[in-house]
Amino acid sequence: MEFAYSAKVEALREQVTDFVNNTVIPLEPVYQSQKPEIGPWDTPQIIEDLKNQARALGLWNLFLPGDRGAGLTNLEYAPLAEISGRSPWMAPEAMNCSAPDTGNMEILHHFATPEVRELWLPQLLDGKIRSVYSMTEPAVASSDANNISLRITEEGEGFRVKGRKWWSSGAMSPHCKVGIVMGLSDPDGERHKRHSMIVVPLDTPGVNILRSTSVFGFSDSGHGGHAEIEYDCWVPRDHLLGELHSGFAIGQARLGPGRIHHAMRLIGMAERAFDIMCDRAHNRFPFGKAIAEQGVFQDWVAEARIRIEQVRLLVLKTAWLMDTVGNRGAAVEISAIKVAAPHMAQWVIDRAIETCGGAGVSQDYPLAELYAQSRMLSIADGPDEVHKMKIARHELRRYAPGS
Amino acid sequence: MEFAYSAKVEALREQVTDFVNNTVIPLEPVYQSQKPEIGPWDTPQIIEDLKNQARALGLWNLFLPGDRGAGLTNLEYAPLAEISGRSPWMAPEAMNCSAPDTGNMEILHHFATPEVRELWLPQLLDGKIRSVYSMTEPAVASSDANNISLRITEEGEGFRVKGRKWWSSGAMSPHCKVGIVMGLSDPDGERHKRHSMIVVPLDTPGVNILRSTSVFGFSDSGHGGHAEIEYDCWVPRDHLLGELHSGFAIGQARLGPGRIHHAMRLIGMAERAFDIMCDRAHNRFPFGKAIAEQGVFQDWVAEARIRIEQVRLLVLKTAWLMDTVGNRGAAVEISAIKVAAPHMAQWVIDRAIETCGGAGVSQDYPLAELYAQSRMLSIADGPDEVHKMKIARHELRRYAPGS
Amino acid sequence: MEFAYSAKVEALREQVTDFVNNTVIPLEPVYQSQKPEIGPWDTPQIIEDLKNQARALGLWNLFLPGDRGAGLTNLEYAPLAEISGRSPWMAPEAMNCSAPDTGNMEILHHFATPEVRELWLPQLLDGKIRSVYSMTEPAVASSDANNISLRITEEGEGFRVKGRKWWSSGAMSPHCKVGIVMGLSDPDGERHKRHSMIVVPLDTPGVNILRSTSVFGFSDSGHGGHAEIEYDCWVPRDHLLGELHSGFAIGQARLGPGRIHHAMRLIGMAERAFDIMCDRAHNRFPFGKAIAEQGVFQDWVAEARIRIEQVRLLVLKTAWLMDTVGNRGAAVEISAIKVAAPHMAQWVIDRAIETCGGAGVSQDYPLAELYAQSRMLSIADGPDEVHKMKIARHELRRYAPGS
Amino acid sequence: MEFAYSAKVEALREQVTDFVNNTVIPLEPVYQSQKPEIGPWDTPQIIEDLKNQARALGLWNLFLPGDRGAGLTNLEYAPLAEISGRSPWMAPEAMNCSAPDTGNMEILHHFATPEVRELWLPQLLDGKIRSVYSMTEPAVASSDANNISLRITEEGEGFRVKGRKWWSSGAMSPHCKVGIVMGLSDPDGERHKRHSMIVVPLDTPGVNILRSTSVFGFSDSGHGGHAEIEYDCWVPRDHLLGELHSGFAIGQARLGPGRIHHAMRLIGMAERAFDIMCDRAHNRFPFGKAIAEQGVFQDWVAEARIRIEQVRLLVLKTAWLMDTVGNRGAAVEISAIKVAAPHMAQWVIDRAIETCGGAGVSQDYPLAELYAQSRMLSIADGPDEVHKMKIARHELRRYAPGS
Repeated sequence: MEFAYSAKVEALREQVTDFVNNTVIPLEPVYQSQKPEIGPWDTPQIIEDLKNQARALGLWNLFLPGDRGAGLTNLEYAPLAEISGRSPWMAPEAMNCSAPDTGNMEILHHFATPEVRELWLPQLLDGKIRSVYSMTEPAVASSDANNISLRITEEGEGFRVKGRKWWSSGAMSPHCKVGIVMGLSDPDGERHKRHSMIVVPLDTPGVNILRSTSVFGFSDSGHGGHAEIEYDCWVPRDHLLGELHSGFAIGQARLGPGRIHHAMRLIGMAERAFDIMCDRAHNRFPFGKAIAEQGVFQDWVAEARIRIEQVRLLVLKTAWLMDTVGNRGAAVEISAIKVAAPHMAQWVIDRAIETCGGAGVSQDYPLAELYAQSRMLSIADGPDEVHKMKIARHELRRYAPGS
Repeated sequence: MEFAYSAKVEALREQVTDFVNNTVIPLEPVYQSQKPEIGPWDTPQIIEDLKNQARALGLWNLFLPGDRGAGLTNLEYAPLAEISGRSPWMAPEAMNCSAPDTGNMEILHHFATPEVRELWLPQLLDGKIRSVYSMTEPAVASSDANNISLRITEEGEGFRVKGRKWWSSGAMSPHCKVGIVMGLSDPDGERHKRHSMIVVPLDTPGVNILRSTSVFGFSDSGHGGHAEIEYDCWVPRDHLLGELHSGFAIGQARLGPGRIHHAMRLIGMAERAFDIMCDRAHNRFPFGKAIAEQGVFQDWVAEARIRIEQVRLLVLKTAWLMDTVGNRGAAVEISAIKVAAPHMAQWVIDRAIETCGGAGVSQDYPLAELYAQSRMLSIADGPDEVHKMKIARHELRRYAPGS
Repeated sequence: MEFAYSAKVEALREQVTDFVNNTVIPLEPVYQSQKPEIGPWDTPQIIEDLKNQARALGLWNLFLPGDRGAGLTNLEYAPLAEISGRSPWMAPEAMNCSAPDTGNMEILHHFATPEVRELWLPQLLDGKIRSVYSMTEPAVASSDANNISLRITEEGEGFRVKGRKWWSSGAMSPHCKVGIVMGLSDPDGERHKRHSMIVVPLDTPGVNILRSTSVFGFSDSGHGGHAEIEYDCWVPRDHLLGELHSGFAIGQARLGPGRIHHAMRLIGMAERAFDIMCDRAHNRFPFGKAIAEQGVFQDWVAEARIRIEQVRLLVLKTAWLMDTVGNRGAAVEISAIKVAAPHMAQWVIDRAIETCGGAGVSQDYPLAELYAQSRMLSIADGPDEVHKMKIARHELRRYAPGS
Repeated sequence: MEFAYSAKVEALREQVTDFVNNTVIPLEPVYQSQKPEIGPWDTPQIIEDLKNQARALGLWNLFLPGDRGAGLTNLEYAPLAEISGRSPWMAPEAMNCSAPDTGNMEILHHFATPEVRELWLPQLLDGKIRSVYSMTEPAVASSDANNISLRITEEGEGFRVKGRKWWSSGAMSPHCKVGIVMGLSDPDGERHKRHSMIVVPLDTPGVNILRSTSVFGFSDSGHGGHAEIEYDCWVPRDHLLGELHSGFAIGQARLGPGRIHHAMRLIGMAERAFDIMCDRAHNRFPFGKAIAEQGVFQDWVAEARIRIEQVRLLVLKTAWLMDTVGNRGAAVEISAIKVAAPHMAQWVIDRAIETCGGAGVSQDYPLAELYAQSRMLSIADGPDEVHKMKIARHELRRYAPGS
């Protein structure tokens, strides 16, 4: 047991910290000022500039294990993803490490046919295009993946994809070119063998992007929003990912890293809020005393530090487990951080909002948007209730009579 | 002691409930559809239509005691304001009972010179114009009113008003014509005799509306947003409200009813969220069972009902105290509901969001905006920390040695 | 709607407050000093002295509506029971208003045959003897009354009572002479028509008192503890309460007032803790400043006041509902206070403990014992989970499709 | 970074787990049955038997680094102390690792003169006698060590020790022979150089043990209770520990390990409660379904697992920091676990109590006593408020203007 980061990770942390704190965050106002001057769902130019800088620094595709990425383990990547979470609208994309592209690249890498993979993966790895992941549906309780009802049916030399998805994040962006769609391919199959996953280029006839859903009033327009999409289209057979009816297993493979990446970034989001609240507290003087010297505020600071540190350690241990026993072996811990990280972040950010008063809920601080993101992350990829049920059932099995 | 509403109130509740549930709420989609077609800070036409209906029904200026209003006590008005909170962006304005106009009308009624009063009050009572209340400042910790630094200084036959305000809600609206401004008039005066309050018509040269601040990602554009205003203007002496240097006392007089009206509406907001979550729960079936039949959800429902009911009773008792012993005598209770009501609403709304999943944070439900509003109301009119300090000091005084 | 206590209640409140604060509480040390000198389950003599005083003051059997008691409504009795909760081990018994005797007296009054009633009720009303209520069983999940398994079967001219009960509070006391026992009389009957309730004099052959269970480390020995009893005895037919198989209905009738009395006293317990913590805070000076002036402590004080006040209002409204629409009509509110009051009390008492430090958990303050009592009251008469389920189902019914 | 225990630790964990789960816990009923048959403050014989077994197994003095103990690091000892916490009244003493002896042995080892050290340390290391640590005082707010007022003054060839202490745990035991006392030796000295620490054999004339304080009704009689002691005695000069006026520094040195040992054991206490609640849940069937299958209960299980795991990681990291950067370097983390571990344990134990119903608060389960212990541990060695203040000040320093 050893709690120090390796020398390699320490060096990378220093680099990423320098990039995020000294380059990215100071440019956040530029992002804000460029935003109204471009297309409603377009990305400010500053992001392209930052991508060039990150690539030049070698801070590129850090999320991806193996040859095509930086070759880091989850445990090595975790503290870096955390730092990128300090500026979640700019840093992850600048480093080509933003959701849902990271998960999509992993799926294409592992499950796409060579032709389809080479068509899309190099462009994504190069940050030339973006991609979308279409899983959730407006008409059913998608927290239970078994409810997914978009149909994928064989038709000629390929598949018809028919149904409606939403929360297809990024698809409003003009740079978003390809989607991965989960659908029901065998309604009568075994419980976890009913669904398939398939690649759908967004210019396929019959892909209709209807609108975007907002998150607490925020459109996430710089990231391509969250699209509702009507699919009624045909794609060739080689667009299928993995085996037919193996969609559920692919989804599970994808969600493990996806969830831990979110958890990592949530820690960075909380740390950003913590910085803001501590800074502000030294500079505001209600009732004749700096907020920093007031007992209730100090209680929040201590509580925030205790909560952040605990979640960070749980995330790091989960990353280590994923590296050593695999995503399936780490399933309980992945569910645990899926629940714990957003709640911790919401709490810290909420206290930062309270510390900043009216400014805290406004556009003058990133806090309200950080809150909105972290609240959404208690829902996305499965709400708390589903993950807690999984944890509980796993734990209770050990105590079952006769076990 | 008697917990039944009077027959008069029951009749009004029935009327207001019918108006809000059967007229206003069904028209919310019309409001949403009219919004993009008008000026960015303008109010959809549907509101004017509803105002006409409400006036015809006698559901007009219910907030105002005395001859010029409906003549209701706080205790009588409380349950009506609650119902209007079920549709907080439409119902209060439809009934000419929305903040900050209600408080401003009360101030004009009680403290304005007859000339100034008759210039503005009839138009406000008639719903022809709107008004703004400029208190909070961006540069100081305004939770402590003693920090307010905008200067009001005698100059010729009137006063110069010079300084910057923000969170001046409503001022972006083209219908907003007049402001009430709080400023420092005697920096060396006694603690609560340093400030004055003054009427400033918004077309006065030197009134510059700079921008609006958002609440989470919501602009509140249909209500004139929340303006940051640079004041450097002159107004005649008769625009002063009450005595010179009596601003603090006027503010206190205003804030009592203002806070309880917010608390009342927050109960309605929570009830609206409660309705949404219970409805949804009967219609979604994750893991083969309606959400309504799942234990964790039922726990939220019970907890929500318990919390709502407790806050409602505390608000009603506070209203009764204001009627019987006055705002000052009810000061501790006013602080108590100022703290309790927004927290209760936040909790209920958050559980409704969780119940609705992705839809809950989006524009498809009013929940995220209700959350944003209720979160802001833990800050506006004094954050929790200030009100709790007041309550605690009051309580602890009874136990002081020698007391 | 009216929140003032009636003149009659105000006068009684003054009397009871005077008795509890100025007579009972100052004698608590006498109770403690007499306790070790008497039999292990006996009651200190001071209680008899106080009973005489209370009776002389007319503060006797206040709980009982009608001729045989003080004739108060629930709403009138509520604020008096609250005050008695300030010294829960002495004041209720001194005033002949302590559980389980109050509930048992009500049952005997309403459901016993005249012979049996007159045998026991006058002695109980006179405070000469005490009684026990045997409902919960050690071997089953008694939170679900349908699980109750002690058998009541007809045998000759009476009934055999056979089974084991525990948490039969008071039965260790030498003064406890009679019990009311709930048992299964018709296993195949309809869901709520399977049980009967019967009177069992404790000297009946076959009543074996086995031991007492403690609450945290407290034996409640001054109140006859909480006995585990093996019943294998026979009682004559006229000992049956009400109709055969009507035990469930009688239990419901009993539990309504029982639960609200507990809730009332819990408010008094919280107020006692509040007093202790505010007193102490003025007299301890860590880090150079009285605790009373420290922000975190003030936050607890405010929070405690807000929570106490809300629960008090909910309890009062529930009492009013019981008076006006009956126990059944008030069922949801009774469940609500059953959940809310103990939690509120636990929170306030816990903060008082924290304020008193080591003294707080010790015998030097009543706080630890108050905590233990209030924690037990989240379990006794049905745990939170059962009451929340009842509330939720009631609420959700309104939203069911087709309703 | 590496989250696996070393092979050495894994082997020890297996041994300690086997000893605690298969030897100690099954003998808990024997401890209970022996208790009433011995002196009121004496220790049941079973403990001596277990001590012999533990010594024979080499599970002895595991807490002590260096030659005289097991030579383990804090990180190595942490998971072992955790397991001993599963039976906190038996396992730590059986392994000669119980408070306050462990801390006292460390102080004697490091700070006593050779003569005094060899007089007491071998007997303590051998489990022949026990010892007491007298720090807290009944008359002052001891959460602030600067308030400590017992006087240590030079008198002849030694020191007079005069004042009153309480919470001197263990001193009621006939086996407790020696105390370490903290007192004020230089009232005018610098803030942290006013106090001294000194050895006082308990048979010194003028040491009067007055009484014991309880913890939520529990006397902790098997462990020598918590004594209040009047000191008015004289001890020779060589009984001084370390330098004159260095008591504060010695105290800090002692408290680091003391606090982490408590935190470790609290995790074991929580795991024990977790076991009990999961076992029970499979065996009780309210409303026709095992508790283990009910949603609300599952929510507690998941929440408990998430909370336990987070605190465990934070404790382990703190142990690692103490080993690598020293107690001072780990001060913030030590404060963090001092706050977090008892709260986590209280929450888990409380949910276990709720799961067990009436049995949960009674002597039939160890839960109520575990709760009492864990609640006291939020107070002992400094209440939350003091530790949070320390954490907050440390954090806020980084953000101070000009820093």
